[in-house]
Amino acid sequence: MTDKFIDAIKKTGAPICVGLDPKMSFLPECIAGKIFTPKGISTESVAEAFFEYNKAIIDAVKDLVPSVKPQVAMYEELGIPGMLCYQKTVKYAKDAGLIVIGDVKRGDIGSTCASYANAHLGKTELSYGGKSCSEITFATDYATVNPYMGSDGINEFLKAGKENDSGIFVLVKTSNPSGAEFQDLDIGGEKLYERVAEKVDEWGSDSVGSYGYSDVGAVVGATYPEVGRRLRELMPRTLFLVPGYGAQGASGKDLKDYFNKDGLGAVVNSSRGIIAAYKKDGYAEFGDEGFAQAARAATQDMIKDLRENADVYC
Amino acid sequence: MTDKFIDAIKKTGAPICVGLDPKMSFLPECIAGKIFTPKGISTESVAEAFFEYNKAIIDAVKDLVPSVKPQVAMYEELGIPGMLCYQKTVKYAKDAGLIVIGDVKRGDIGSTCASYANAHLGKTELSYGGKSCSEITFATDYATVNPYMGSDGINEFLKAGKENDSGIFVLVKTSNPSGAEFQDLDIGGEKLYERVAEKVDEWGSDSVGSYGYSDVGAVVGATYPEVGRRLRELMPRTLFLVPGYGAQGASGKDLKDYFNKDGLGAVVNSSRGIIAAYKKDGYAEFGDEGFAQAARAATQDMIKDLRENADVYC
Repeated sequence: MTDKFIDAIKKTGAPICVGLDPKMSFLPECIAGKIFTPKGISTESVAEAFFEYNKAIIDAVKDLVPSVKPQVAMYEELGIPGMLCYQKTVKYAKDAGLIVIGDVKRGDIGSTCASYANAHLGKTELSYGGKSCSEITFATDYATVNPYMGSDGINEFLKAGKENDSGIFVLVKTSNPSGAEFQDLDIGGEKLYERVAEKVDEWGSDSVGSYGYSDVGAVVGATYPEVGRRLRELMPRTLFLVPGYGAQGASGKDLKDYFNKDGLGAVVNSSRGIIAAYKKDGYAEFGDEGFAQAARAATQDMIKDLRENADVYC
Repeated sequence: MTDKFIDAIKKTGAPICVGLDPKMSFLPECIAGKIFTPKGISTESVAEAFFEYNKAIIDAVKDLVPSVKPQVAMYEELGIPGMLCYQKTVKYAKDAGLIVIGDVKRGDIGSTCASYANAHLGKTELSYGGKSCSEITFATDYATVNPYMGSDGINEFLKAGKENDSGIFVLVKTSNPSGAEFQDLDIGGEKLYERVAEKVDEWGSDSVGSYGYSDVGAVVGATYPEVGRRLRELMPRTLFLVPGYGAQGASGKDLKDYFNKDGLGAVVNSSRGIIAAYKKDGYAEFGDEGFAQAARAATQDMIKDLRENADVYC
C-alpha cells in the first residue's frame, strides 16, 4: 500500500493529507441555507450538509494532493446518518482517486480487534449453511491505531492490512500538550514514545516496499520538532502522519526534520486550515460561495510552504 | 452515576456485567435458521440475528445483574446495520433497567474528543438560524476510554459525563499478554499502569459519590491478581471494570483483592462464558433452544463463584 501512497505523493509533489473534519461552524451559508432552510436541523440534515461540503472540498483539491483523512468522531457524533455520511465520504474520495486515511484511533485485543480491522481496513465475511457474503463496511486505505494494548491488537490490523493491501498509522507522539503526560515518561533512559517508535519499526519490518517504507506508519505531531527529528532517526522506514500544521501552530520550517534525505517519509495533515480557509483573513476574498476554491488556494499555499521551508523535493 | 451503579450492584448482589459481544459462531440455530434461511446472509440479516440474540440474553439476565457491556467492534464490523443494532441493543438494555457500558475504547484530543464524548456519553446538540435539535445517538451510561493521549481527551469525557450523569472506565491494565509491552514499563520505580492509575484517581476526584466511588473507573484485567491488588491500593475510590473472567482464565478466587473491604469496588465482566454458555459442557442440557436459560444459569454460577471465592458481600 505504501508504495502506492508514495507514488501518489511523488506525482502530486505534495506530501499532504486534507483532514475532512466537518463542523457546523465551518459550513458555508450556501450549503447550510440550502439544506437547513427547507429541511430544518437534525442529524440527518447536518449529515447531508457535511457530505455536500466534503464533496466540494474533495473536488477542489483532488488533483493537488494524494490523500484525505476523515475524522470519524465528527461523523459518529451524528449517529447513524453521520456514519452513512462517513461511508459515503470514504467512497467518494476513493472514487476520486485519493488515498483515504480513516482517523479512527481504534485499538483492542484479539478477536475484538479483528472486528475493528475488518470494519476499517478489510472486509466483513459472513457465512452460514453454505451461503456466504463479503461486504466492505467502513474500510479505508489506512487507519490510525492506538498502541496502549500492545502487539495483540496491532497484529490483527497487520493481518487485515496484508490481506487487503492497506496500512496503519500508530499513535506515537501526539500534537496535544497533555500527550506528554504518558508519552514523554522516562523509561530507563528513553521516553515511552521512543519505545513505541521502536515497536512501530519492528511491526513494519515485514512490509517494507520498494521505496523503503513499510505499511506501518506513525502519528507524530508537528508541534514538537525536536521530537520529530529523534523519531525520524528511530523510524527511518516509517511514513509519518503529521497532525498539528496550521491551526495548531506548526509551519513548514518546523517540519524539515520530519522528512528523510530522500525528501519523503512524512504526510502532513491540515484540516481546519484548508477546509475552513474561507473564514480566514488571507482567503476572505473567496467569500462564502468560494469556500472550495479557498480550500484549493490554501492547499496550494501549504504545498509552497512545505517545498520552500521543509525541504520537501519529492 | 456511580451511586446509581452501586445501588444496582447492592440490589442484585452481583458485581457483574454481561458482555454483549455477539459472533456468528455463538448464534443458536433457533435464531440463525429462522432469519438466515428466508433472508440469506448479509450484514443486515446478521445484525437482525444479533439483536434477537441480545434481546433474549438481556431478558434472561436482567433481574440477576446490574449491567451489560456491548462491545462496539462486533457491531462496527457489520457497518450501518451493525451500528443500528448497537443503538437498538443499548436502548433495549436501558429500557430493561440495566446500566449500559459502551465498550468503545475511544480516545482523541480537544474538539474531536468532545464529538466522541457527545456520541457515546452525551447528546448531539445542533443549531442553525434560531432552530436547534438535541439527539441521543449512541449514548451509554459509561464508556471505556483509552488514556494514551492524556488529560486533554479525558477532560472532554468528564465534561459530557457531568452534564449527562454518566461515567468512564479508563484502560489501566488490560487482560491480554502483550498489554505488558507498554503498560508494564518501569518509569522510575513504578510501572506505567501505576502512573495511569494515579491519574485516574486524580481525574475522579471531583465526582466521588456517597459510597466513596467516583465516576472515573478503571479497566483492570482479571488475569494478573497481584496487579489487581496493587491497583486497588492506588485507586481506593475507583470502580474497576474487570475483563478476563471465565474464557480468559480467571475465576472468583483470583479476584478477591480487586474488591475493597466494603465488598464493593469492582464489576466483573463475562462475555462468551455467559452468552455462549449453551455451547459449554456444563450447560449442554439446555440445548440450542435453551441458549438464554443457559446464559441465566451461567450467570447464577458466576454470582455464586464471586460470592464464595472473591469475598463479595455487597
